[in-house]
Amino acid sequence: MKSDLIKQQAHLAIQKRLDYTFRRPELLRQALTHRSFSAAHNERFEFIGDAILNYTVAKMLYDTFPKLTEGELSRLRANLVNEGVLAEIALEINVGDGLYLGSGELKSGGFRRPSILADAMEAMFAAVSFDADFFEAEKVVRRLFAERVKQVDFKNQGKDNKTTLQEALQARRLALPKYRIEDQICCNGEIQFVISCDLGELGFVCQAQGSSRKAAEQETAAEALAWLEKKFPLKKSRK
Amino acid sequence: MKSDLIKQQAHLAIQKRLDYTFRRPELLRQALTHRSFSAAHNERFEFIGDAILNYTVAKMLYDTFPKLTEGELSRLRANLVNEGVLAEIALEINVGDGLYLGSGELKSGGFRRPSILADAMEAMFAAVSFDADFFEAEKVVRRLFAERVKQVDFKNQGKDNKTTLQEALQARRLALPKYRIEDQICCNGEIQFVISCDLGELGFVCQAQGSSRKAAEQETAAEALAWLEKKFPLKKSRK
Repeated sequence: MKSDLIKQQAHLAIQKRLDYTFRRPELLRQALTHRSFSAAHNERFEFIGDAILNYTVAKMLYDTFPKLTEGELSRLRANLVNEGVLAEIALEINVGDGLYLGSGELKSGGFRRPSILADAMEAMFAAVSFDADFFEAEKVVRRLFAERVKQVDFKNQGKDNKTTLQEALQARRLALPKYRIEDQICCNGEIQFVISCDLGELGFVCQAQGSSRKAAEQETAAEALAWLEKKFPLKKSRK
Repeated sequence: MKSDLIKQQAHLAIQKRLDYTFRRPELLRQALTHRSFSAAHNERFEFIGDAILNYTVAKMLYDTFPKLTEGELSRLRANLVNEGVLAEIALEINVGDGLYLGSGELKSGGFRRPSILADAMEAMFAAVSFDADFFEAEKVVRRLFAERVKQVDFKNQGKDNKTTLQEALQARRLALPKYRIEDQICCNGEIQFVISCDLGELGFVCQAQGSSRKAAEQETAAEALAWLEKKFPLKKSRK
């Protein structure tokens, strides 16, 4: 069939862009199959691909930014690993052309829907790991994210976390956070502040400890921001 | 110093239980160092260890349960990868004995605090990956979780997801979810229901699509449950 040939060409082009050639092309095919098309769809792949992606970008950031705290690394990762960025990469490497969608999704433009594209990207990372191993999948992710990790949003690195969190909440028309001193404890003869950051109706609360109230507040703000950007990305949310 | 010797013995015992011997024992030492003890603490390690753990348990579940959906796998993982289970494992392998804690944390019993133990476990997974590679860390996680994956909570597998979600919300004194039909679409000549599950003030909403309303509701319930158990574990929440 003509459409089969077109798909096969799209799959060849995608493999070229991934710089990875499948020994078992049926794995790539399943990674590109939306649940609306057939029962052998990509949702279970996505579960694995998401974990490969999260580890790989975590390790890239860890190695690139040796001075950042865990909270700051989490935030950078949330900026890099989200539907918006994945859909962007999917468009760059023409993943849409290789997708298998049910007729409903086809008619409604599913081949350029960010959630469908992002899920297919994650599923492809899993497919590479099944076809070869974890390291090959890691390499594919590294190639696709190398430039993005280098150019990761340093604008906000200069800005303090509390300001960035406040702006992020305002952009989503959400209430401002409440910071509270939960405890003051003595560690090695030094006072430590235990601060909580409460996002109110969103139901998110986190705590951090620091030698100054301000430092601990900044840390809670970084964690709250990472959570907010993951759960409520400004682009249309996943699922 | 006597206390140094005791720590070294504890570290030897921990390595035996992990079935992994460090070439660079300073990495194990840092993995076991709480931020209250020194600046070379384990928080950045934790960022990497968490990702190694999530991938490894995801893959174990993926391979063990070929018929489960992504939502069901996520839920099982949330049952296995949480502070409670990590602290339990830490107690089994006597991680507390090897911890470096500031005097404040020492006095307040930090060596058996679940959050500190769980963080140290994750940090150790990272330390193994730095000392050797990702695969060695994966092996350590697999050994520690092998029995738990086999015995993963099948009680709730028999129960439907909506009932389990309802019980989980009630146990946390939270409002019951609202299910809505968002859309009915035609896929390959078959009606598909798009259902949303809304956890109200928690700010979580997810959608699923299925050939019956009930099936799609069950799927949203599984996803909501995974989120709930991760964000609001019944044991004292992390951080």
